[in-house]
Amino acid sequence: MNRIPFAEVQQQLAAVLRKLGFSEPRADMCARLFTETTCDGVYTHGVNRFPRFVLMIRNGVVNPDAEPELKAHFGALERWEGHRGPGNLNAYAMMDRTLALSREHGIGCVTLGNTNHWMRAGTYGWQAANAGFIGICWTNTLPNMPAWGGVDPCVGNNPIVIAVPREKGPVVLDMAASQFSYGAIESYKLRGEQLPVDGGFDVDGNLTRDPEAIEISQRPLAIGYWKGTGLSMVLDMVAAMTSLGKATHQLSLDFLQESGISQVFMAINPLAFGPDPRPEQLADDIVESLHRSRPAKENAKIRYPGEKTLRIRQENLELGIPVEPAVWAQILEM
Amino acid sequence: MNRIPFAEVQQQLAAVLRKLGFSEPRADMCARLFTETTCDGVYTHGVNRFPRFVLMIRNGVVNPDAEPELKAHFGALERWEGHRGPGNLNAYAMMDRTLALSREHGIGCVTLGNTNHWMRAGTYGWQAANAGFIGICWTNTLPNMPAWGGVDPCVGNNPIVIAVPREKGPVVLDMAASQFSYGAIESYKLRGEQLPVDGGFDVDGNLTRDPEAIEISQRPLAIGYWKGTGLSMVLDMVAAMTSLGKATHQLSLDFLQESGISQVFMAINPLAFGPDPRPEQLADDIVESLHRSRPAKENAKIRYPGEKTLRIRQENLELGIPVEPAVWAQILEM
Repeated sequence: MNRIPFAEVQQQLAAVLRKLGFSEPRADMCARLFTETTCDGVYTHGVNRFPRFVLMIRNGVVNPDAEPELKAHFGALERWEGHRGPGNLNAYAMMDRTLALSREHGIGCVTLGNTNHWMRAGTYGWQAANAGFIGICWTNTLPNMPAWGGVDPCVGNNPIVIAVPREKGPVVLDMAASQFSYGAIESYKLRGEQLPVDGGFDVDGNLTRDPEAIEISQRPLAIGYWKGTGLSMVLDMVAAMTSLGKATHQLSLDFLQESGISQVFMAINPLAFGPDPRPEQLADDIVESLHRSRPAKENAKIRYPGEKTLRIRQENLELGIPVEPAVWAQILEM
Repeated sequence: MNRIPFAEVQQQLAAVLRKLGFSEPRADMCARLFTETTCDGVYTHGVNRFPRFVLMIRNGVVNPDAEPELKAHFGALERWEGHRGPGNLNAYAMMDRTLALSREHGIGCVTLGNTNHWMRAGTYGWQAANAGFIGICWTNTLPNMPAWGGVDPCVGNNPIVIAVPREKGPVVLDMAASQFSYGAIESYKLRGEQLPVDGGFDVDGNLTRDPEAIEISQRPLAIGYWKGTGLSMVLDMVAAMTSLGKATHQLSLDFLQESGISQVFMAINPLAFGPDPRPEQLADDIVESLHRSRPAKENAKIRYPGEKTLRIRQENLELGIPVEPAVWAQILEM
């Protein structure tokens, strides 16, 4: 693992994107979002994911120039068309628009059809929380889990984000509906480890912690078994119905062709009724009550969602962004 | 198990409520919501729960006369105060108000502080979907699960509802953040059965399917382990911060004193931009794709959330509402 300064990583990614046809400001922004994701410790969806993103620009799935277009609006609700632009730029623009709507109406909602993978879901939660808003957003994905009681991939893992602003550090839940992603399952397999809890079924339909058995069966578990597949299904329905975009079952099973997905963005202004110290105090008190909770293992720390991120971000800003040498070499040659 | 006609159950509950000080229309409505819950097969939160509800009127926790009061409004967002009125009447009025806001603004959001247990969460999802709206709502609860890595009850099971309108039958997810409620755990214990999947930890910190071991340890599992407690925490934060009501950690651990809880109601009008057959078609196609999915067990049926409800409702309307004789005898004497 090499460590490279944030600015250098961002500049290198931006240079590649400009060669691929991105305008300079869009290349900078897209590169920033990839770099921030790695900086925040979400290594699966940052710099390590960049080569795949480049492949999907080259195979025509991602259109570098396309920007979202407003198709319909009514009050605090807007429907946009993503024109298969870069998923992270599209999503960032849509959360920005959602924040504007919630400034105007207290709550705002934007739906986006025909877009591309937004990379780290949490990005748009941090975006909302950093601006002082409660942010809620989700995406559908290609089918990558069986429904409860089923065998074939049928529902997506449809990550949902709920982000809460807080001066001492936002609380950001970034949660896929699968217990483990295929990426995580593969990591355990490569390390020769079992999953810490059941992560799917084997081919005989038994629950298992064996990562390889799940790769073979293609039957990863949803969070909460039947509950998670139900959650995934309603998130897909709301996203497709409100954006008039594609539903999970209409998306390609080939991840290099996963495109035309549907997303929902919501924001609530906790200070819509005027300045008020109480929401901040309530948030702090909840965090403190969690930290006061007695841990199962001595000296263990109980954390809120997103708590680790601030520490990792600080460390990576100071020491440099960790990049896989092989991935970095590949990017330098692009 | 006796079966009693819907109207008779509703009338009997309403008669008890009138004796307790409910006005006639409020007694009828409150009784209807309890009866519908049992009619829909959610036996834990319908007629069987009514005696406990009566206890909480008698002990002063629930104020029969109190109605929600608008405290602040801005565009599509409103904050209401529940004055510790009957939880189901308060919640029904708030979802009704949310639907009105979403008619006006495309999306609407109402937050409610200082209310009481709303009984079946799904009720307010069905309410939204039956009116043609996407409904999202959640509540906080008293602390009834440890945080991930913790021992003491620290987070609530904070049920969330996401309901999608559909002419052939709404899709209604009604999901608590715990894998099994204490009520469900007790039922398994009384039947001498193990839980179908791990439901908590034993006192030594091992995952277990033994219902009694979880009752002793008081460490039920959240859905998706660390994910569910994270979800629960952010739902609590959003509810408390936007309603300026109480957070889970401020609520009594005594369920007969659980009061002053916080709730969020949202609705989106899928036809906000005008009549359009596409949302309905997208919903039907998603349901069909699920039903086409290959089941793990031959001839098993894969169901969407809420699918069983319509069948149970029909059966109970035809044959009568199932009531426990002991509970019913108790209600007849009230």
